Amino acid sequence: MPGESVSLFCNLSNEQRAAVRIAIVANPHPADVAALPGLVWVQSLWAGVEQLVASLPVDGPPIVRMIDPEMSRTMAEAVLAWTYYLQRDMPAYVRQQRERVWNQIAYKKPSSITVGILGLGSLGAAAALRLNEAGFNVAGWSRSKKTLANVHTFSGNDGLIDMLHLSDIVVCLVPLTSQTRGLLNAERLHAMKPRAALINFARGPVVVTDDLLAALDSGHLSHAVLDVFDTEPLPPDSRFWHHPGVSVLPHISAPTDFDTAAMVIAGNIAQFRLTGKVPGSVDTARGY
Amino acid sequence: MPGESVSLFCNLSNEQRAAVRIAIVANPHPADVAALPGLVWVQSLWAGVEQLVASLPVDGPPIVRMIDPEMSRTMAEAVLAWTYYLQRDMPAYVRQQRERVWNQIAYKKPSSITVGILGLGSLGAAAALRLNEAGFNVAGWSRSKKTLANVHTFSGNDGLIDMLHLSDIVVCLVPLTSQTRGLLNAERLHAMKPRAALINFARGPVVVTDDLLAALDSGHLSHAVLDVFDTEPLPPDSRFWHHPGVSVLPHISAPTDFDTAAMVIAGNIAQFRLTGKVPGSVDTARGY
Ligand SMILES: NC(=O)c1ccc[n+]([C@@H]2O[C@H](COP(=O)([O-])OP(=O)(O)OC[C@H]3O[C@@H](n4cnc5c(N)ncnc54)[C@H](OP(=O)(O)O)[C@@H]3O)[C@@H](O)[C@H]2O)c1
Ligand SMILES: NC(=O)c1ccc[n+]([C@@H]2O[C@H](COP(=O)([O-])OP(=O)(O)OC[C@H]3O[C@@H](n4cnc5c(N)ncnc54)[C@H](OP(=O)(O)O)[C@@H]3O)[C@@H](O)[C@H]2O)c1
Repeated sequence: MPGESVSLFCNLSNEQRAAVRIAIVANPHPADVAALPGLVWVQSLWAGVEQLVASLPVDGPPIVRMIDPEMSRTMAEAVLAWTYYLQRDMPAYVRQQRERVWNQIAYKKPSSITVGILGLGSLGAAAALRLNEAGFNVAGWSRSKKTLANVHTFSGNDGLIDMLHLSDIVVCLVPLTSQTRGLLNAERLHAMKPRAALINFARGPVVVTDDLLAALDSGHLSHAVLDVFDTEPLPPDSRFWHHPGVSVLPHISAPTDFDTAAMVIAGNIAQFRLTGKVPGSVDTARGY
Repeated sequence: MPGESVSLFCNLSNEQRAAVRIAIVANPHPADVAALPGLVWVQSLWAGVEQLVASLPVDGPPIVRMIDPEMSRTMAEAVLAWTYYLQRDMPAYVRQQRERVWNQIAYKKPSSITVGILGLGSLGAAAALRLNEAGFNVAGWSRSKKTLANVHTFSGNDGLIDMLHLSDIVVCLVPLTSQTRGLLNAERLHAMKPRAALINFARGPVVVTDDLLAALDSGHLSHAVLDVFDTEPLPPDSRFWHHPGVSVLPHISAPTDFDTAAMVIAGNIAQFRLTGKVPGSVDTARGY
C-alpha cells in the first residue's frame, strides 16, 4: 500500500504505538488493542467477529469485519458441494460400499428439494443464488425481512418455524450473537421435516449439540454436515466423530484467501484515507 | 400418444407382431426382435447401446438411442457433484473423521483445477458447460475435433495423451465401442498427472480394471470414482469395494427419468409419423 507504513505490533515502540490509527487483527489480546490509544478502527481478518466483539470494550474503536466477495464465492461453492453430497446420498453410498452393498437409492431432482438458509448476509445470499442456479428451491431467514429473486424469505420466530417446516436441508449461516446462540435447540430441530438434514457452516454454538445428537439418534434428522463446533479442534471424545449420521469437517468450508483478503483490507484503508470515514462497521450491541 | 396403439410384446399374436413398425426396447432377446418382421426402427430406452448393437444383426432395423436433455442435465449435475467431492477432498475428510483427525487440507480453487472429459457428446458437452460455469478449467476429447466455448478440445491418440497430461481430474463419458474398450490402459493411465483422479460414468470396460488398480496402488492416481464396472452389480470379491482410493457407486450417476424419456420417445414417434423419416440413428459400424 503506497504511503502506508505497516508493522507487526510486537515491533513497535511505545511512541510508535501511540501513532497507530488502524489495527489489522485476528483474535488479539485485549491488552494489546488497549495499548493503541490513537486507534480509529479495527480491521478483522475474519468474517465472524463474535470473539472480537466479546473481548473488546463496548466503547472501543469500531470493528470492521472481513467482507470478501471471494469468500462469498467459496462459501456458496461449499454450500452447493455439500448440498449435492446430501442430495446425491454420498454418505449412504460410502456406507454401502463399506458393507459391499449394491443398492440404487431413488434419485431426487433439485427441483424436488427445498434448501432453507438461516442468514441472508454476504454469505447466505451468495449461497441462495448458487443453489437457485443449480435448480434447488431456496428459502431464507434473516432478522430483517429480505426480498431476493426466487427465494422464499422469512423473518421472526414464526417465520423461522415456517421455514424449518418446509426445508429438506437447512443451512446455517447466521453470525454467533446473543440472539443466535442456541438458535437450533430441541424445539426448532423438532420443527424440521422428518428425515431433513442440517449443514452448519456458521458457528458451533448456534446449534445445541445434545439436542442435535438426540434428533439424529431418534431418526428425526437424517444427517448433519458440521464444519464448526463448540470447541475446535473437535475434542477426541465428542460423539460427533463416530456418529453415522454426522460428517465432521475441520472448519474448512470457506477459508480466508490471503491474496483477496489483503486486497479488501487495502481497499478499506484507501477509502478511509480518501474520505476520512470508517468503513461499514459491526453493530456491537447487535453483535454482528 | 393419440392414434398410436402400444402393446407389450408378450401380449401380441403372431398376426399382430407382423404389423409392428416400432419396437421400444431395453436389452431385448434378439429372437424377440427377429419375431417382428415389419420393424422399421428400434427405440432404445438407454443412452448406451453397446449391448443392443452387439446383439442385433448388422443389417437389422436402425437403432435410435435415448437422447434426453433431462438425462444430460442429470449427468452434468453428477459430474459437477463428484468433481466437488474430489476438489473438496470429501474422501479424505471421511477417512480423517474415522480416525478422529482434525486436519485442514489446503483449499484448491476451481480455477486451479483442469477437468478433462473423454467424450463430448450429449452428456460430455453438457458436463463441460456445467464445470465451466462452476469455474473449472475444462478440456475435452472426442473422435472428431470439436469447437466448444471455453473448452480446450483434443482429438486423436496424441490429443488424448496431451489432454491426460494436463488434467487433474479425468471424466469418462465415451460410449463403449470396439475403439473405446480398454481405452484407459496402463500406458494412458500413466500419462495422467501424478495424483490425478478419475471419474468413470461411461461403461466399465472403457477402463482396464487391473491397470487402474495398479495406478491407484502405486499412488500415481489419488482416487477413482466408479459408477460402472465390467460386471454389474459389482461382484463381492472385487478389490474396488475395499480399496481406500476408490468410491463405488451402483450405476446411479444419471438414471433414466421415466416421464421425460416417455416424452422423448413420443416425440420421436410423432416425428416419424409426420415425416416418414427414422430419427437420427446409431451407426452400427462405428458402434454409437
Ligand atoms: N465455516 C467457515 O469457514 C466460515 C467462514 C466465514 C464465515 N463464517 C460464519 O458465517 C457467518 C455469516 O457471515 P456473513 O458474512 O454472511 O454475515 P452477515 O453479512 O453479517 O450476515 C448475517 C445474516 O444473518 C442474519 N442474522 C443475524 N442475526 C440474526 C437473528 N438474530 N435472527 C435472524 N437472522 C439473523 C442477518 O440478518 P439481517 O440481514 O437482517 O442483518 C444477515 O442476513 C459469520 O458470522 C461467521 O460466523 C463461517
Ligand atoms: N452411468 C450412467 O448412469 C450413464 C447414463 C447414461 C449414459 N451413460 C454412458 O455415457 C455414454 C455417452 O453418452 P452420450 O449420450 O454423451 O453419447 P454421444 O452423444 O454419442 O457422445 C459420445 C461422445 O464420445 C465420442 N467418442 C466416441 N467414440 C470415440 C472414440 N473412439 N474416440 C474418441 N471419442 C469418441 C464421440 O465423438 P464424436 O463427437 O466425434 O462422435 C462423442 O463426443 C453412453 O454411451 C453410455 O455408455 C452412462
